[in-house]
Amino acid sequence: MKALVLHAPHDLRLDEIAAAADPGPGEVRVAVSHGGICGSDLHYYHHGGFGTVRLREPMALGHEVSGIVTALGAGVTNLCEGDRVAVNPSRPCGSCDYCRRGLAHHCLDMRFNGSAMRFPHEQGLFRAAVTLPAAQAVRLPAETDLALAAMSEPLAVCLHAVAGAGSLIGKRVLVSGCGPIGCLTILAARAAGAEEIVASDIAAPVLAAARAVGADRVLDLAAEPEALDPFAEGKGRIDVVFECSGAPPALLAALRVLRPQGLLVAVGLGPEVPLPVTALVAREIRLQGSFRFDAEFATAARAIASGRIDVSPLLTRVLPVAEAADAFALASDKSRAMKVQIAFPPP
Amino acid sequence: MKALVLHAPHDLRLDEIAAAADPGPGEVRVAVSHGGICGSDLHYYHHGGFGTVRLREPMALGHEVSGIVTALGAGVTNLCEGDRVAVNPSRPCGSCDYCRRGLAHHCLDMRFNGSAMRFPHEQGLFRAAVTLPAAQAVRLPAETDLALAAMSEPLAVCLHAVAGAGSLIGKRVLVSGCGPIGCLTILAARAAGAEEIVASDIAAPVLAAARAVGADRVLDLAAEPEALDPFAEGKGRIDVVFECSGAPPALLAALRVLRPQGLLVAVGLGPEVPLPVTALVAREIRLQGSFRFDAEFATAARAIASGRIDVSPLLTRVLPVAEAADAFALASDKSRAMKVQIAFPPP
Amino acid sequence: MKALVLHAPHDLRLDEIAAAADPGPGEVRVAVSHGGICGSDLHYYHHGGFGTVRLREPMALGHEVSGIVTALGAGVTNLCEGDRVAVNPSRPCGSCDYCRRGLAHHCLDMRFNGSAMRFPHEQGLFRAAVTLPAAQAVRLPAETDLALAAMSEPLAVCLHAVAGAGSLIGKRVLVSGCGPIGCLTILAARAAGAEEIVASDIAAPVLAAARAVGADRVLDLAAEPEALDPFAEGKGRIDVVFECSGAPPALLAALRVLRPQGLLVAVGLGPEVPLPVTALVAREIRLQGSFRFDAEFATAARAIASGRIDVSPLLTRVLPVAEAADAFALASDKSRAMKVQIAFPPP
Amino acid sequence: MKALVLHAPHDLRLDEIAAAADPGPGEVRVAVSHGGICGSDLHYYHHGGFGTVRLREPMALGHEVSGIVTALGAGVTNLCEGDRVAVNPSRPCGSCDYCRRGLAHHCLDMRFNGSAMRFPHEQGLFRAAVTLPAAQAVRLPAETDLALAAMSEPLAVCLHAVAGAGSLIGKRVLVSGCGPIGCLTILAARAAGAEEIVASDIAAPVLAAARAVGADRVLDLAAEPEALDPFAEGKGRIDVVFECSGAPPALLAALRVLRPQGLLVAVGLGPEVPLPVTALVAREIRLQGSFRFDAEFATAARAIASGRIDVSPLLTRVLPVAEAADAFALASDKSRAMKVQIAFPPP
Repeated sequence: MKALVLHAPHDLRLDEIAAAADPGPGEVRVAVSHGGICGSDLHYYHHGGFGTVRLREPMALGHEVSGIVTALGAGVTNLCEGDRVAVNPSRPCGSCDYCRRGLAHHCLDMRFNGSAMRFPHEQGLFRAAVTLPAAQAVRLPAETDLALAAMSEPLAVCLHAVAGAGSLIGKRVLVSGCGPIGCLTILAARAAGAEEIVASDIAAPVLAAARAVGADRVLDLAAEPEALDPFAEGKGRIDVVFECSGAPPALLAALRVLRPQGLLVAVGLGPEVPLPVTALVAREIRLQGSFRFDAEFATAARAIASGRIDVSPLLTRVLPVAEAADAFALASDKSRAMKVQIAFPPP
Repeated sequence: MKALVLHAPHDLRLDEIAAAADPGPGEVRVAVSHGGICGSDLHYYHHGGFGTVRLREPMALGHEVSGIVTALGAGVTNLCEGDRVAVNPSRPCGSCDYCRRGLAHHCLDMRFNGSAMRFPHEQGLFRAAVTLPAAQAVRLPAETDLALAAMSEPLAVCLHAVAGAGSLIGKRVLVSGCGPIGCLTILAARAAGAEEIVASDIAAPVLAAARAVGADRVLDLAAEPEALDPFAEGKGRIDVVFECSGAPPALLAALRVLRPQGLLVAVGLGPEVPLPVTALVAREIRLQGSFRFDAEFATAARAIASGRIDVSPLLTRVLPVAEAADAFALASDKSRAMKVQIAFPPP
Repeated sequence: MKALVLHAPHDLRLDEIAAAADPGPGEVRVAVSHGGICGSDLHYYHHGGFGTVRLREPMALGHEVSGIVTALGAGVTNLCEGDRVAVNPSRPCGSCDYCRRGLAHHCLDMRFNGSAMRFPHEQGLFRAAVTLPAAQAVRLPAETDLALAAMSEPLAVCLHAVAGAGSLIGKRVLVSGCGPIGCLTILAARAAGAEEIVASDIAAPVLAAARAVGADRVLDLAAEPEALDPFAEGKGRIDVVFECSGAPPALLAALRVLRPQGLLVAVGLGPEVPLPVTALVAREIRLQGSFRFDAEFATAARAIASGRIDVSPLLTRVLPVAEAADAFALASDKSRAMKVQIAFPPP
Repeated sequence: MKALVLHAPHDLRLDEIAAAADPGPGEVRVAVSHGGICGSDLHYYHHGGFGTVRLREPMALGHEVSGIVTALGAGVTNLCEGDRVAVNPSRPCGSCDYCRRGLAHHCLDMRFNGSAMRFPHEQGLFRAAVTLPAAQAVRLPAETDLALAAMSEPLAVCLHAVAGAGSLIGKRVLVSGCGPIGCLTILAARAAGAEEIVASDIAAPVLAAARAVGADRVLDLAAEPEALDPFAEGKGRIDVVFECSGAPPALLAALRVLRPQGLLVAVGLGPEVPLPVTALVAREIRLQGSFRFDAEFATAARAIASGRIDVSPLLTRVLPVAEAADAFALASDKSRAMKVQIAFPPP
């Protein structure tokens, strides 16, 4: 069967690999339908990794996929052949300290599809089919749009970040950075009851997307560097920031507008930030990292399937897997692309 | 000017009272437009009060009103004549311990319009005009529907209850009791991101309203007393209950379906409930009362004005104040009425 | 070997039972040293159980024991022969939903020594030796007093209750009910930084014990029924109540003195309480059940061993197991006894 | 009367200033007894300020003082002449947004004794007497040691930091930086129930003090730079860090040993820290600033007076105010001094 395998930076091949195994007990086989290209896929593609995580052997990319169940292993009762599913790419060990404390996303032995953190690498989901534990497949209604369903994984990241901020009722929220994660965070914060959502970025096209998904105000900090100044009045007028850009100047600008005891949730990965400790102390700012997701994956898949969260404005284009090179090129051009997907032919 | 004054049970008169005073510094005069009839108004009307709170002198009823600003006192800069506003009926003292701790709704010297708790009673807002501190008038856009805006007060009660429950992302919620407060709580919980909302009552008409405002499932516990049983499986499958009926059997049924460490927010007032302490302890259930609102009033008004929360399915009928008797009769018939309002003629 | 087995109410026998098994992989054998008599042991002894939990076959009592490791199974590296240990009587399944969510004390398949909830009953720890998973034995320093160490289990219950109340710094706490659990809660609340601890009961002897373990004020509600009245001033002056009596009048009295948004932690099991819902709502009282413990067991054992929490004032008397009848009689007399223990002869 | 006034860096004079005013309504006059020299006093003394806060006119130093009430204004009922008191140096306005939200320590118009943040500067408390609102004087028992009582202010800072961390029961805590604030934090964390307290610094003398006030382990990171490594195992083994040094390398070292979802409370002021955002995100670290105190001042004063928190090991020496130069020299020598105080002659 086919898989989209990265051999080296810019050397992405549609390889023939061994067919997905017959599902064992508790497993299912899923024919992959749609797969979204994520920022980490692009990092592998362009740079061979990020930080200390480097591609050391060929690895199929991809961890944002939907598909259709094509075979059931023994004992699987909550899925049927033909079911549409969103595929959760994370497989915690279930037995380490963190798994037992209800913090499975901090599992000491996590397997996450399409990641070069471990060696051998955990192969990704841009392949015609995959066999995995049934618990990783979230059943969706028959009429679900599989392209939208393939956005469950990044939406789960954003729901996790938002859930970590507590109730947003009556809160003024700043979403800093309006790429796919920023825009999905706008949707998640709105779904969680945020009263006012301000979105900032330095690129006009993504701010248009932010507006499209419901930001109340969008601030172009490249065109108007002082646009956040009014929110710094008093001791700051923003209750909660979701920092999705990973850009140090963005994080610092966001800190400046947080009210005393306000919260900044850091979602975007990025380089070191020169943190002004004295300001953090004097205003009792709270900073908290948010990483991936846990139960929010199923929540995200169901919110998309039910239409409760409409991610469609963020789907730039779907290309057949045979045109993966074009898809990666388009996904790399932030002036034109929000979320780009590849599609596998139906099984 | 006219006011709807209760002299004794069932003795409700459209009295002529002194005109609303000219606004002093920091005050505004508001011509009242719409006023919703609340359960407490009905208690005064039918029974002369509730518990130890009894009508001891004639009192204008009403605390859920909207209107139009007709005069500004000195120093009022955030409102203009002609502005549409929702009127917050609560006026905390601003200087007691609770006001200083950010718990103004527990003010030791609270004044709340249309309440017989104090003597002389705090007169209500079913009157042609009222003069009050500008801080109690929330400015709304010019096109705001003033009938819907008059539901800000009960929606604020529900937003306060929901905000107290923390993040609802991924949570299965039971709303117990589907009168106006229950239905507004369904809207509030949905706006706050609840994943699944189950609504229960013993009256079919209100369950239809619950469905209309977005409950995913409605359970008629009169027709099907065991309808909640599936939610008691395991050690309980409901994450959060909002108890809005005040009926002891409803609270007890709801406790039974809460998962360990689940939360019941008690919103509805009612008689004593025989609390099963051992079950509470063994499942580590959390119970918390929720009373009125604080900053949520402005949040509610703005959510209604922006259309973000659509309360229109709950507005049964608006009658002119001259037909107040009919309005109170209709409001008292729960088989036909959800929220009934009286309207004053434009100023 | 010997075990103290209850055959029927008041029919407690020092039976000869099969010797404790050789420890398998990951297990240890512990020679039991001291065992505290708990309220539930007394319920079995006097009444054959409580509620729906009834003795249906002979069962060794006891779940508060300390001992000495006498044999190690394969792979046990954190214990040595001769180690003094406190024995945790709870063995969650490790794989149910609650175990995986970090709520192992709500395990759907919990085994708890000396409990008749399951059938066959889970045998208790009043026996000469027991073989169990090494994870259930908390290693203590060589000089640890094994009588005090046998109070780890009830202290763990109290630390769990106190931890659930959040920071107690600056808080005025009421401990309602001053039996062993109440007095240990006084110690736990003090260790957690409570500013002022008021203790109430209706029996003078236990109030003397409460004073001995550090209560700042003790209130005899039998002698002085109105002693709590000054704490009801304003809207209530107590921040946190730990209700340890299970007596409905005590819980109701405690609710009355809680400030708005105050917290009552229910620890004591008891009959139904006629809960005043309107008061709960109007003052936004929080009520939360606290059940057993989880990681707090090791915390308790280490706090006792280090002397950081001094439980010695609560140890009434230690009797040899051969005098178990006297021990149970003494433990049943609350005018003379706080914690009574039986001791097994050294191995 | 006498006051210790800083005219310029190293130009500290015992000036004669106008006598403290007669107390007006609600005020008291306090004869100052002891005054602790704080790090900020030393910054003014050596450098004329810190950051943008600069000495622009002569200013009495000092904000950590105790004293004796010598005169009462009208209406003061909770204090008597002769009472020993700890003096709270912070006077929030009582009417801004933050004061009304229960966050008075973030008052937009705060007056804090001995601070050059405002101009004219808010004069300090190193003076023979001061007249201030009675609410700023916390009454202490007659036998209270006034030198120890003068440590109420820095202890309040630490209690505030610790209270912000929630329950510490069962937690392993790292206190980073063992100057006076670090050592008082050790005392506060112990009083709040921390299970294990590890203390780190780069100076041996302060580590001895840390040990003296109860740290379970002390780590000299200058002598043994890798001493924290064992705590970095797994994904980190420290639950809560209190960073009291303000030194960037210390904060970074502490972050590295925090477990996933662990909390770092930043107490120490300092320069920018190059924050590793990716690590913060991947381990979902929480960082929160803690600033001064609010109600914790009275809590601190009472804990010292009752002996519940014993700060005496931290009192290096008390010198008469006439020897203030020596006192400041000693306080500046961290190899010899923890807390140095000046004393005024009795009134």
